[in-house]
Amino acid sequence: MTDLRHATGADIRRRARCGELTGPTPGMALGHVQANLVVVPRELAFDFLLFCQRNPKPCPLIDVTDPGDSEPRLVAPGADVRTDVPRYRVYSHGELVDEPCALGEWWRDDLVSFLLGCSFTFENALVEAGIPVRHVEAGCNVPMYRTNIACRPAGAFRGPMVVSMRPMTPAQALEAERVCARFPRAHGTPVYSGDPAAIGIRDLDQPDFGDAVEIRTGEVPVFWACGVTPQAVAMEARPPLLISHKPGHMFVTDLRDSDLEGI
Amino acid sequence: MTDLRHATGADIRRRARCGELTGPTPGMALGHVQANLVVVPRELAFDFLLFCQRNPKPCPLIDVTDPGDSEPRLVAPGADVRTDVPRYRVYSHGELVDEPCALGEWWRDDLVSFLLGCSFTFENALVEAGIPVRHVEAGCNVPMYRTNIACRPAGAFRGPMVVSMRPMTPAQALEAERVCARFPRAHGTPVYSGDPAAIGIRDLDQPDFGDAVEIRTGEVPVFWACGVTPQAVAMEARPPLLISHKPGHMFVTDLRDSDLEGI
Repeated sequence: MTDLRHATGADIRRRARCGELTGPTPGMALGHVQANLVVVPRELAFDFLLFCQRNPKPCPLIDVTDPGDSEPRLVAPGADVRTDVPRYRVYSHGELVDEPCALGEWWRDDLVSFLLGCSFTFENALVEAGIPVRHVEAGCNVPMYRTNIACRPAGAFRGPMVVSMRPMTPAQALEAERVCARFPRAHGTPVYSGDPAAIGIRDLDQPDFGDAVEIRTGEVPVFWACGVTPQAVAMEARPPLLISHKPGHMFVTDLRDSDLEGI
Repeated sequence: MTDLRHATGADIRRRARCGELTGPTPGMALGHVQANLVVVPRELAFDFLLFCQRNPKPCPLIDVTDPGDSEPRLVAPGADVRTDVPRYRVYSHGELVDEPCALGEWWRDDLVSFLLGCSFTFENALVEAGIPVRHVEAGCNVPMYRTNIACRPAGAFRGPMVVSMRPMTPAQALEAERVCARFPRAHGTPVYSGDPAAIGIRDLDQPDFGDAVEIRTGEVPVFWACGVTPQAVAMEARPPLLISHKPGHMFVTDLRDSDLEGI
């Protein structure tokens, strides 16, 4: 695989579109915003949009398409959400039914696509601020946990917040708070730090998604609202059709990370 | 009228609910967030929510109700949007048909209420920062203008941005930029400053809404996205039913201005 660290968002999307790129995208097109994708039918789109509006930390919207429109006109003009993600997941009534590289026959004229900010944006900023990110250094997936923090429900969509965890020193945690405050549309500041039991997490060594990471002496676990939340919530609503990216196989936009500062 | 400057949001709403308060709310419950109200039927709610999401500067959402639910649970638990605004405007197919003090017979089980941040929040912050606000000093309405800045359309909702204008010195304008950056959910930073013709405004002395104000030697006009935009756009879509507050007769929330800092 060519080194795609310095590729543009359009490069990555073109490679995904022609079938050359079917793998995960972390580390690619550094500095460009990568996004979570959730696609639902029009009849559920109001409730899902309302869910995102009510829960901006786990569900930071960066673009929403018109029904049937496959082009995210704000963040990637000319792109096509039907082809430009390396790999998709298709759910029917909450069951995984396909993992295609393009949506082809699954696409319908009533589908609405939601692009949501992703943690890569603030992780890049943490690293630039000299704060190491454990799972990146370890070359594994970030650990993610279901919590007892309830999201604000909207129609069919309801459920607990899923969080990601990064261990760091208390001093680094304060600095991380400052860095992440710049990125409200990439999950923003941490939602919690400290005793995992207080937010309903029993065992940090047993994440619900992703991989466990080492917590060293003098470090505290710091938790961020996670983009898995809207997917988990959307799947539990068991809609007739729901499409997302395969985890780690993101939609890469034309935005730069700095474009997500403020609103 | 009792001095309501130091009233709470709940005080103001109770007075509106019992019919004791039917006038405008500027200067009341200082420090509490006042909000614009737009109510549309469920079938238009996705498009209107999407319009707000795509145009956060003119349409900063602070709460959206479930269809048929008249309680803004996030910003004013226990309140009722059917009674707690001093005076409403009811539009049928874009025509003003009623100006009631309570929605009574107009309410339907498919109505969705949108509360949008308002300029009073950042004006309070400007005054606290020592930046005089001309129309407040003059005791008149802020001047508002239609521009040639197109909003990003969503379904039936499309149209130009309406802006409000406050004259100040260039140094005060820089300070205002800094102050208003704290309030992305109250229209945020100015959208423009300088030659009005560049944004399609012919004559500052002839505002499209509100009152003209004096611009003194050495001052520049500074323009903010205005909460009249979503109402103007919603009315131009001529929905069968649309309800808003009467201008200046706002819904007063339980939020403090500082709650609108960040997201």
